[in-house]
Amino acid sequence: MSSPVVGIIGLGLIGGSLARRLSPTHTVLGWDSSPSTAAAARTTGIAVADSLSGLCGSADLIFVATPLRAMPEMFAGISSAIADRGDVSVTDVGSVKSPVAEWARAAGLSSVFVPGHPMAGTERSGFDNADPALFEGATWALCVSSDFDLARWLQVADLLITSTGCKILSPAPDDHDEAAATISHAPHVISSAVLNSLGSDPHPALAAAMAAGSFASMTRVAGTNPDRTEAMVVENGEKTAVRLRELATQLEMVAARLEAHEPVSEFFRSAAGVRSAVASKTRKPTRMALGDDAAATLIELARAGRLIVAVDVDRLEIDVD
Amino acid sequence: MSSPVVGIIGLGLIGGSLARRLSPTHTVLGWDSSPSTAAAARTTGIAVADSLSGLCGSADLIFVATPLRAMPEMFAGISSAIADRGDVSVTDVGSVKSPVAEWARAAGLSSVFVPGHPMAGTERSGFDNADPALFEGATWALCVSSDFDLARWLQVADLLITSTGCKILSPAPDDHDEAAATISHAPHVISSAVLNSLGSDPHPALAAAMAAGSFASMTRVAGTNPDRTEAMVVENGEKTAVRLRELATQLEMVAARLEAHEPVSEFFRSAAGVRSAVASKTRKPTRMALGDDAAATLIELARAGRLIVAVDVDRLEIDVD
Repeated sequence: MSSPVVGIIGLGLIGGSLARRLSPTHTVLGWDSSPSTAAAARTTGIAVADSLSGLCGSADLIFVATPLRAMPEMFAGISSAIADRGDVSVTDVGSVKSPVAEWARAAGLSSVFVPGHPMAGTERSGFDNADPALFEGATWALCVSSDFDLARWLQVADLLITSTGCKILSPAPDDHDEAAATISHAPHVISSAVLNSLGSDPHPALAAAMAAGSFASMTRVAGTNPDRTEAMVVENGEKTAVRLRELATQLEMVAARLEAHEPVSEFFRSAAGVRSAVASKTRKPTRMALGDDAAATLIELARAGRLIVAVDVDRLEIDVD
Repeated sequence: MSSPVVGIIGLGLIGGSLARRLSPTHTVLGWDSSPSTAAAARTTGIAVADSLSGLCGSADLIFVATPLRAMPEMFAGISSAIADRGDVSVTDVGSVKSPVAEWARAAGLSSVFVPGHPMAGTERSGFDNADPALFEGATWALCVSSDFDLARWLQVADLLITSTGCKILSPAPDDHDEAAATISHAPHVISSAVLNSLGSDPHPALAAAMAAGSFASMTRVAGTNPDRTEAMVVENGEKTAVRLRELATQLEMVAARLEAHEPVSEFFRSAAGVRSAVASKTRKPTRMALGDDAAATLIELARAGRLIVAVDVDRLEIDVD
């Protein structure tokens, strides 16, 4: 299957960007539950199916790009719609992966499902903000689930790398969610907390007038649609809560030291140290063959932060950056 | 004094940017304790005094743009150097204002001192990063201290507005420091805490590889020189600690709700509400005369977040945006 028909369910920021990116080079069929979104997509030349079952009847590879909360029902619909078809693969773009993999399993899709998450996006949403260049240079997490199927995983990775300009990270779903709590979900909560604290200042208008670059950076993320933010944080609630408590402990520690007139230089220096420790990793690009232990190999590569920049679907090989 | 000789002590990011901005239109005399910084400034055409006393012997208006911790000693030096001179005004660019005003008072400078703080700057520092456009459109807090002198305050405000492109905010030093804790000092601590939490992730390299826009925004501020960050946070330690404890309480609250599977939508919505409440204030530009109650008037304007965009030094009037 050198050029699969790509189905994209949900044409918001991520699904719309993907549809716009793939349409010039692939047979793309989109679908969206909102008639106005479907109409907007059609005006940009994207083929949009009349129904979900219509899409499922034609697509060889289906991206589910709906909000998280719509996924369980969507998976059930896809599962029955593709029951009579042969080799269809399904992937998604949701921001948490263990729950999504579980929903796919519950719908009977796990043998054809590759959990995915592009680390791209902005505080904006909707098809109107779709950008075909959104994934250029971005990292796309394509998870190695417990139902891992190497051929299927390589097929999706190949399409993404060659057609969107992204690089692939191959974590286990649970590792992905742990990291997402650290670098995205807890930071979203913090960004909103910083904005809330402006409301607690004795003179919020004065504080707002003084707000410059640092405040703008810290609260940019809080501009995300609150419902979308809540959905992703709640679905990763347990891991996010651990990070939030750990962050609260850090803030209480700094507060206590400031009140006691004890030095806080070590705190600021350790943060700078984390940045340089992560940045200074030197890596040697490598070609690797994937064998029987492919799942374990990919998970270990992801834990080391290694990115996959090319795959050879026939030879079962990957290029690691 | 229509065009005062401007002295600038400390030619780092802020002092250097100011010197580069004012040099084409004003007689500017800089000074820096670092010979290499002084030499770098001279190569860009900025006149640099050979000694601090040389600068103090010529300047009519002195900006102290040194690190905070150098200020107490610097004020003492300036105080003795200008003791025999007539009408010299002194201002500063430090990021906290009550302690700085106190240091000026201790050095016997309070009658000629106008505490200032440009809400500009980046995570970079040093003369090499100086940018003459740094203050264009920025807010410059020029505080109304307990030793407020209207004529002197108007003189400094006039120079800044007409020559740097900034707008003036006129808070009391304590109001300034409260707001600075909210919108700058606590956020600096939080940004470092978020970066530290990357180090606590079970797989920091994976988390770093997944880090996208939100993490970059939240940790940009942590790229500031740790010593500079510590200095400003410590000098505003009491107020910053209050904000940090309040933020920690918010994070603990969200963590508890996530653990209990209780909704957190209200938390994210309230943050969005704070932003729109602050943004939606409509204001009518006004010209105002400043009388005997000028200090109280200016402090109230600042509490309302009103910015001063022009001053008339002779008529004692201001244009409020």
